[in-house]
Amino acid sequence: MITNLHPKLTNGLNDYPEVNDFSGGTLQCLCESNKVEVKIDAQTLHNHACGCSKCWKPEGATFSLVAVVPSEKVQVIHNEDKLAIVDETAAIQRHFCKECNAHMFGRIENKDHAFYGLDFVHTELSADKGWSAPQFAAFVSSIIETGTPTSEMGDIRKTLNDLGLPTYDVLSPELMDVISAKAAELNGTLKK
Amino acid sequence: MITNLHPKLTNGLNDYPEVNDFSGGTLQCLCESNKVEVKIDAQTLHNHACGCSKCWKPEGATFSLVAVVPSEKVQVIHNEDKLAIVDETAAIQRHFCKECNAHMFGRIENKDHAFYGLDFVHTELSADKGWSAPQFAAFVSSIIETGTPTSEMGDIRKTLNDLGLPTYDVLSPELMDVISAKAAELNGTLKK
Ligand SMILES: [Zn+2]
Ligand SMILES: [Zn+2]
Repeated sequence: MITNLHPKLTNGLNDYPEVNDFSGGTLQCLCESNKVEVKIDAQTLHNHACGCSKCWKPEGATFSLVAVVPSEKVQVIHNEDKLAIVDETAAIQRHFCKECNAHMFGRIENKDHAFYGLDFVHTELSADKGWSAPQFAAFVSSIIETGTPTSEMGDIRKTLNDLGLPTYDVLSPELMDVISAKAAELNGTLKK
Repeated sequence: MITNLHPKLTNGLNDYPEVNDFSGGTLQCLCESNKVEVKIDAQTLHNHACGCSKCWKPEGATFSLVAVVPSEKVQVIHNEDKLAIVDETAAIQRHFCKECNAHMFGRIENKDHAFYGLDFVHTELSADKGWSAPQFAAFVSSIIETGTPTSEMGDIRKTLNDLGLPTYDVLSPELMDVISAKAAELNGTLKK
């Protein structure tokens, strides 16, 4: 592999041990002191590698790792004053640390959004062990737009598949069906 | 199967025999007389089932079948005066017969579009045998928006897979990479 997919994907998925009854933990920003801390009182769902250009990634990584969790389980417990929103017009309001730039949580404020009620979080910002492992890779073709050579795409999809992650150029079929069902609900065509 | 995917997909892919040196044929609209005829002087590429709401489909079908061919190989040879454009503001200018509503060809006029130079055609409108067979199914989740029950999605993806068609909720990875490469070219980040 030429490309650094993500530090947490270089070692199989060994950074994601199964921990019985895991019920959450704390995310910390990357500042050396006065860290922003976000407490999450639940296991995450739909953890995945994301190739889009908007998700926060560690330095040099091609993909982000991002999961969802119910918004009511997410609480800023330290240094909330260091947080700001990346882009208030975006569907996902990404709350980031103004000093270290880590994205602490992304929240959807639009009640008509398919994922309203869920926050997006990067559990690699937590020292706790037991968070759900990545299950798939999303928006894979988009990494071409952030500078990945087209000639590497075959190898990258294969490497992700070998890790057990099916690759998609949008989200997973399960999530895409949720998005289409919400669109159908809004235009009155939904059948269960 | 409850849902009628498409008449040409009910019989395996037996409607798509391989014909050596096949080099095109003629599409005809559905009118009983004064048919619009479009001559195509090439084999088609990337034929696929498409679940989006904008592609033309036969009555009762859930998916369209649509392929691409270089625009310069497409020529209206009869009754061009019966053609109009569905939506002049759309990326694809769909030329349809005003009497029977069949879409005869879709053309991209924007030179910055990833698929500029290609026309979209429905080869089921041709009596000629040898057109390329469908290779994948695209925009599958979108059929929920046109009224397919969410509970049928698992069966539908399986039926398509069993026909040899991998299912995607956008286009195929190959085509998505072409789209991302064009976006990268336009913003100056493309690496080959
Ligand atoms: Zn910080
Ligand atoms: Zn007609």
